[in-house]
Amino acid sequence: MDTALPMKTSAGRFFEDFRLGEVIRHATPRTVTAGDAALYSALYGTRFAVQSSDVLAAQIGYERSPLDDLLVFHVVFGKTVPDISLNAVANLGYAEGRFLKPVYPGETLSAVSEVIGLKENSNGKTGVVYVRTRGLRSDGAEVLEYVRWVMVKKRDEAASVADQHVPQLADSVEPSHLGIGCPPIDVEAYDFGLAGSPWRWGDFRIGERIDHVDGMTVEEAEHQLATRLYQNTARVHFDQHAATGSRFGRRLIYGGHVISLARALSFNGLGNAFHIAAINGGRHVAPLFAGDTVYCWSEVLDTAELEGRSDMGALRLRTIAAKNAPCTGFPGRNGSEYDPAVVLDFDYWALLPR
Amino acid sequence: MDTALPMKTSAGRFFEDFRLGEVIRHATPRTVTAGDAALYSALYGTRFAVQSSDVLAAQIGYERSPLDDLLVFHVVFGKTVPDISLNAVANLGYAEGRFLKPVYPGETLSAVSEVIGLKENSNGKTGVVYVRTRGLRSDGAEVLEYVRWVMVKKRDEAASVADQHVPQLADSVEPSHLGIGCPPIDVEAYDFGLAGSPWRWGDFRIGERIDHVDGMTVEEAEHQLATRLYQNTARVHFDQHAATGSRFGRRLIYGGHVISLARALSFNGLGNAFHIAAINGGRHVAPLFAGDTVYCWSEVLDTAELEGRSDMGALRLRTIAAKNAPCTGFPGRNGSEYDPAVVLDFDYWALLPR
Amino acid sequence: MDTALPMKTSAGRFFEDFRLGEVIRHATPRTVTAGDAALYSALYGTRFAVQSSDVLAAQIGYERSPLDDLLVFHVVFGKTVPDISLNAVANLGYAEGRFLKPVYPGETLSAVSEVIGLKENSNGKTGVVYVRTRGLRSDGAEVLEYVRWVMVKKRDEAASVADQHVPQLADSVEPSHLGIGCPPIDVEAYDFGLAGSPWRWGDFRIGERIDHVDGMTVEEAEHQLATRLYQNTARVHFDQHAATGSRFGRRLIYGGHVISLARALSFNGLGNAFHIAAINGGRHVAPLFAGDTVYCWSEVLDTAELEGRSDMGALRLRTIAAKNAPCTGFPGRNGSEYDPAVVLDFDYWALLPR
Repeated sequence: MDTALPMKTSAGRFFEDFRLGEVIRHATPRTVTAGDAALYSALYGTRFAVQSSDVLAAQIGYERSPLDDLLVFHVVFGKTVPDISLNAVANLGYAEGRFLKPVYPGETLSAVSEVIGLKENSNGKTGVVYVRTRGLRSDGAEVLEYVRWVMVKKRDEAASVADQHVPQLADSVEPSHLGIGCPPIDVEAYDFGLAGSPWRWGDFRIGERIDHVDGMTVEEAEHQLATRLYQNTARVHFDQHAATGSRFGRRLIYGGHVISLARALSFNGLGNAFHIAAINGGRHVAPLFAGDTVYCWSEVLDTAELEGRSDMGALRLRTIAAKNAPCTGFPGRNGSEYDPAVVLDFDYWALLPR
Repeated sequence: MDTALPMKTSAGRFFEDFRLGEVIRHATPRTVTAGDAALYSALYGTRFAVQSSDVLAAQIGYERSPLDDLLVFHVVFGKTVPDISLNAVANLGYAEGRFLKPVYPGETLSAVSEVIGLKENSNGKTGVVYVRTRGLRSDGAEVLEYVRWVMVKKRDEAASVADQHVPQLADSVEPSHLGIGCPPIDVEAYDFGLAGSPWRWGDFRIGERIDHVDGMTVEEAEHQLATRLYQNTARVHFDQHAATGSRFGRRLIYGGHVISLARALSFNGLGNAFHIAAINGGRHVAPLFAGDTVYCWSEVLDTAELEGRSDMGALRLRTIAAKNAPCTGFPGRNGSEYDPAVVLDFDYWALLPR
Repeated sequence: MDTALPMKTSAGRFFEDFRLGEVIRHATPRTVTAGDAALYSALYGTRFAVQSSDVLAAQIGYERSPLDDLLVFHVVFGKTVPDISLNAVANLGYAEGRFLKPVYPGETLSAVSEVIGLKENSNGKTGVVYVRTRGLRSDGAEVLEYVRWVMVKKRDEAASVADQHVPQLADSVEPSHLGIGCPPIDVEAYDFGLAGSPWRWGDFRIGERIDHVDGMTVEEAEHQLATRLYQNTARVHFDQHAATGSRFGRRLIYGGHVISLARALSFNGLGNAFHIAAINGGRHVAPLFAGDTVYCWSEVLDTAELEGRSDMGALRLRTIAAKNAPCTGFPGRNGSEYDPAVVLDFDYWALLPR
C-alpha cells in the first residue's frame, strides 16, 4: 500500500481551518418527500392543519401542504454539520433566521454557509465560529437563512488565527422582514374548526403566558431516527460507546429535536400559529437525554402587523421547554440563572390569521 | 398582561360538557400518503398483498394499493381524541364499525362524531359517552363509521347531566351491510401464490381456531411513533414523568396499536383476509406496556355470503391477543373471567376471495 | 369444528422439504415508495448524494434518485424468509450477488428463488440450503440476483434427503459482469462538492485501508422497524419472550441491518461509491444486539475497469464491522480467528466515477 495516499475520511474542520468570508457549499442535496413529512409527523405528532391537509392548504393559498418549517430547518442544518460543527464543543446560539419560501414535497434542498465571524477563546483551545447559512431550492431560490455560532475545538493550540471578527447580530428580526415565506392567505377559507383553535392573531396580548400542558418523553430510537433523517452526523447523538466515557455518559439529543417537540406541544394554545416566519434566537440551556419528558410554555413577547397584509399577523413568542417538570409555574430565567429544569429558550416570530 | 384573556389551551371536554345529539367536527384534517403506508409497514410488518403491491391491487379491481383499513381507522380515531377522550379513564368498547370505501394515498381524511349516548356513573365522578364517528374524504364521501364508548371524568362532581340515554347497539354488523368498502374483485386475477396463502373463504369453518404463532415485542419508541402518526394526543401514551406517579407507573400503549399488531400477526393463517369490512366489537381487556410480547389467535365465529357477490365472502373472526404467553392453548374467557394473559378481544368481519 | 380441516398457518419449510432445482415464488409483492426511502434514511442516515437528490441523480443519467441498493436487497431478501429461512439456525453466507437495474419509487418488487444446493449435516439434525434468489420488477425485469446459503433444521431427524449437491460459487463476481445496474454516468455533471468527497475511482489503491471513524448505537425499536419494513418475518428479531429462554437471551438483529449501518458509515471515506454493483461474499461473524455500537473499516481488495465504459470504475471492497470497539486498529481475521469485536465481514464491488 502506498503510504503517501491521501486520507480519504474527513475529520471535519477545526477552528483554525475557518477563514472569515469563506463560503462553504455543503454536501448531500436532499429531495424532501411525503415520506419525510410522515416521519416528521410520527416523530413529533404535529397537528398544524396547514401542514397536515393538502386540501386545507390549497383552499387558503398554498399549492398544497408545505413541509413543516422546522423540518426544512433541520434538513438544511444537517447539511452544515460535517463542515461546521463536527468538532464543535457546543452550539451556542441562533439569530436572524428567516423562512423565505414554503417547501413542498418533491423539492430538493441544499445549503451554503458563509463564515461571518471568528473569535478565538482566551484558553487557546477553542474558538467561536459564526456562519450565515442559506437553504436553497434546486432552482437557486432561497428558502431559509439563519446565523448560528458554535464553539469549535482547535486542532493545534499553537495555531494562529488571522482575521477575527464578532458580527453584530440583530436581537430580533424586524417585523418588516416577516411574511415572505407565507403566501397571501384567504382567511375566509381558513377553517378555524378544522384548525383546532378559535384564537386569531388579535386574540393574543403582549405578556400573555400559555402553558402548553402536555408532556412528551423521548426515546433513544426516536431522536436517532430524527437526527439521521436530517443527515446530521454529529457523533454525540449516536455513539453510546464513546459517550460512556464522556462527561454526561449519555448520548446527547440534537437540540433541534427539542425545538420540534416544543413546537408540536405548543399546538395546544397556538393552533393557528401555523407558520414560523423567523427565528430571533435560541439557546439550548441544558442537554436532554433519552427518558426525559419535555414540557413547554410560551410567552407573547411582541405582536406585529405585516406590511401591506391584512390576512396574517405576527406574534413574537418565547417558548421555554423544561424537562421532567410540568410548566404550570412557567419556569424561566431568574436573573442570569435558569430554572434547573429548563432545556430550551427559543425566541421566534410565528404568523397567525387575523 | 390582561388577566381577562381567555385561556388559549384546551383541557378537553369533561362528561358534563357533552350533549346528547351534539355533532362535533374534529380538527386537523390529514392527507394520508405513501409515507404513512411505509411507516405502517415498519410499525407492524403487515404483509397483506393487496395493501403491499399496487400492481396486484390494480389487477384485481382496486385503483392501486389501498391503505390498510386499520391505518384509516387510527387516523380517524386520532382526530376524535382531543374532543372525546382527552379526559377519558377508559376506552370501553367499539361497535357497528364499517369500512365503506378504500382509502388511497393522497386522499385527505377528517372526522365528525355525534354523541349518541350519555350515562352518568353512580359514583358521580364519571360517565360513559357514546359517539358515532364518521371518517370523511375531502369530497364528503364517508370512508368509515363506528361507535365507541368511553368513560370520561366529570370536571365537577356536582354537575348535573340533563339528557341521558344508552343506545341500543348491534351485537354484530349484519352481513347485508358488508362489502361496500371492497370493489368487485377479479378472483381469477388474484394470485394466491403471491398473496402467501392458499386458503379461500370456503376453506374456513365456524368454530375453527387458528394460532397465529408468532410473537412481537413492543418498544416505547414504536408505540409512540405510531400514536403520534395518528395524531392521537392521549397523554397516557407519551408522558412517563406523569405516568411514574400513576397506577401502572408506565406509559400505556394505545389500544389500537395492539389491534394492528394482532392483525399483522394474523396474516399467518388469514393471509387472504385482506379487507376488514366491519368491526363488531372490541375490548381492551388489559393494558399493554413496552417490553411486552404480543401473540394472538383467531376463531371463526361465523361465515356469510355477500349479497349479490360471488367474488368475496365474509368471515366473522374473533381475534384474541395475549401478552408474554404464546397462544397455543387459545387463552380466552372462562365464564366472565379472561385468562390473565389476554389483552385484546376483537370481533370483526373480514373478506376473503371465494 | 371439523378436525380434518387443514392447518391454516405455515410453519415454514424444514430441510427435508426442499428439493434440488425447485423454484419457489415468494409471497407479498411490494411497491416501494418515497416513504420507504425516507425510512431508510432515518434508519441509517445514509448520505450518498445520488440516492438523496433527484436533481443530482437526473443530472448524471438516472431517471431520478434510485432507491438505495441495500434497501432493494433487504426487500427482496425479506420475501424469501417465510419460505427459506423461517426454520434456519444460521445465515451462512452470500455470493454472486449482482444489482442489475436501478429501482425507483413506485416500482413493485417480487422475488423467486431456485434451490441450487442441499447438503445434510453429519449430525442429522440440520442441513444447508443454497438458493439463488432473483428480485423482479412487475414487468419481469430482473433487478437483483444473489446466492445465499442457510443452515435449516430438519423436522424429522430420520427423514432422508434424496438429491444432495454443493454448488460451485464464484469467490467474487467477475469485473466483466459489473456495471449493468448503473446507467451511463455524465461525470462532468457529477458534482463532487455536493457529493461530499473529492476521491474518484483512480484515487484508491489495492491494499488501502480506510477507518470510517464514526460509531452508531442500535436500539431495539430501530432494527425492528427496519426488519418489519422489509417484511422479514424471522422470529428471532422480534420476540423477546421467546428469546429470553434462548442461547443469547436477546433478540438478534437482522444481519442486513448491520450491512446497511456499515455501508452508511462508510460514506466517510467512500462518499462517491454510490452504487453497489455486486456482493462477492458476506459473513455475519457474530451477532449484534440492541445497545451495541457499530464501527467499521474498509480495505480495497481490488480495482477494475468496466468494459466499454470510461465513466465509472469498480473497487472491490471488504468492509468489516466491529461492535463496541472503534476500528482505528483495523480489527479483522488473524488466521482463522476473527478479532472478538468483529460482527460482519462483507466483500462487495462498488462503483465510483473516474
